[in-house]
Amino acid sequence: MASESANGAVKARLLLQQCLSARLQVEPASELEEAKYVEIGKGLIIYVCFMKGATEETVEKMVKSALNTCLSPSQDPSATKRVSVLELPGDVLIIPQATLGGTPKGKAMQYHKNIAKDEGEKLYANFVSLCEVSLHMSEKAREQGKQVRAGTYGNLQVFRTDTNGPYTHLLEF
Amino acid sequence: MASESANGAVKARLLLQQCLSARLQVEPASELEEAKYVEIGKGLIIYVCFMKGATEETVEKMVKSALNTCLSPSQDPSATKRVSVLELPGDVLIIPQATLGGTPKGKAMQYHKNIAKDEGEKLYANFVSLCEVSLHMSEKAREQGKQVRAGTYGNLQVFRTDTNGPYTHLLEF
Repeated sequence: MASESANGAVKARLLLQQCLSARLQVEPASELEEAKYVEIGKGLIIYVCFMKGATEETVEKMVKSALNTCLSPSQDPSATKRVSVLELPGDVLIIPQATLGGTPKGKAMQYHKNIAKDEGEKLYANFVSLCEVSLHMSEKAREQGKQVRAGTYGNLQVFRTDTNGPYTHLLEF
Repeated sequence: MASESANGAVKARLLLQQCLSARLQVEPASELEEAKYVEIGKGLIIYVCFMKGATEETVEKMVKSALNTCLSPSQDPSATKRVSVLELPGDVLIIPQATLGGTPKGKAMQYHKNIAKDEGEKLYANFVSLCEVSLHMSEKAREQGKQVRAGTYGNLQVFRTDTNGPYTHLLEF
């Protein structure tokens, strides 16, 4: 759970933001069809970036951290303690975000620490299914019909969000 | 300009996202008045977090990086090279985001690396004025009436954004 960046190269980054609602394009418009979107209500936006060295094991740690860390203000206005998105319970929107792996060099960003696209795509698919399984295993999230929605790997992430405070957190693995 | 995290403790973090538009609350509603907001059009959202050890010098480096790094898709659709927000030119929305300094411990986040609130408030004010000066010094940004808007330090950051691809980047100083 703890950041491992101090012990070696960072293998993955998650950026977490609270939202009231969010909408993400999963298929751009074509000549024949309109663009397709997924939407969530109150919950957690998870930006995901895999870097060289990330494995299935990394994915497991990432999902556990993202869903169990207490980052969300409780629904109960008298409670001051933060709760996890599973405890809230809230929806989850997963957005692939390769740019999060960038390193500045001069005025440009370089992405040579990022994982190869095919490997990243596999880990991303795993990340999404593990989140789905975890939400489904949570009684509270399941009973209240909370959903995992996910962006398409490699797409432009066309989206909008509305929040009462993103409480942006960075987790490194 | 390069990340200095490898050479010692991180003193500040910037999170940068492209937007088509964004709106941020700068004063919550009271019994007498409605909430107040600032808005920007196409441009850059800058989330700012100062950690222990951040100084005026850190602020100068941060502003230089944020405004000059080439992160924005060009307005010219035939151009493949990214441009800086000054070259675009675009608006700038600055959002204080202390949570970005958090470190996970068990299921909670700890913020003991964050700078003291009064020091952070001063550096934040400097960051905002330096951005304003830089936009004003840029002929292109000035001529096209581009604006810097900034959130209130310590507030809940109630906001919404719309983007054709956030291209989220993390810069550490």
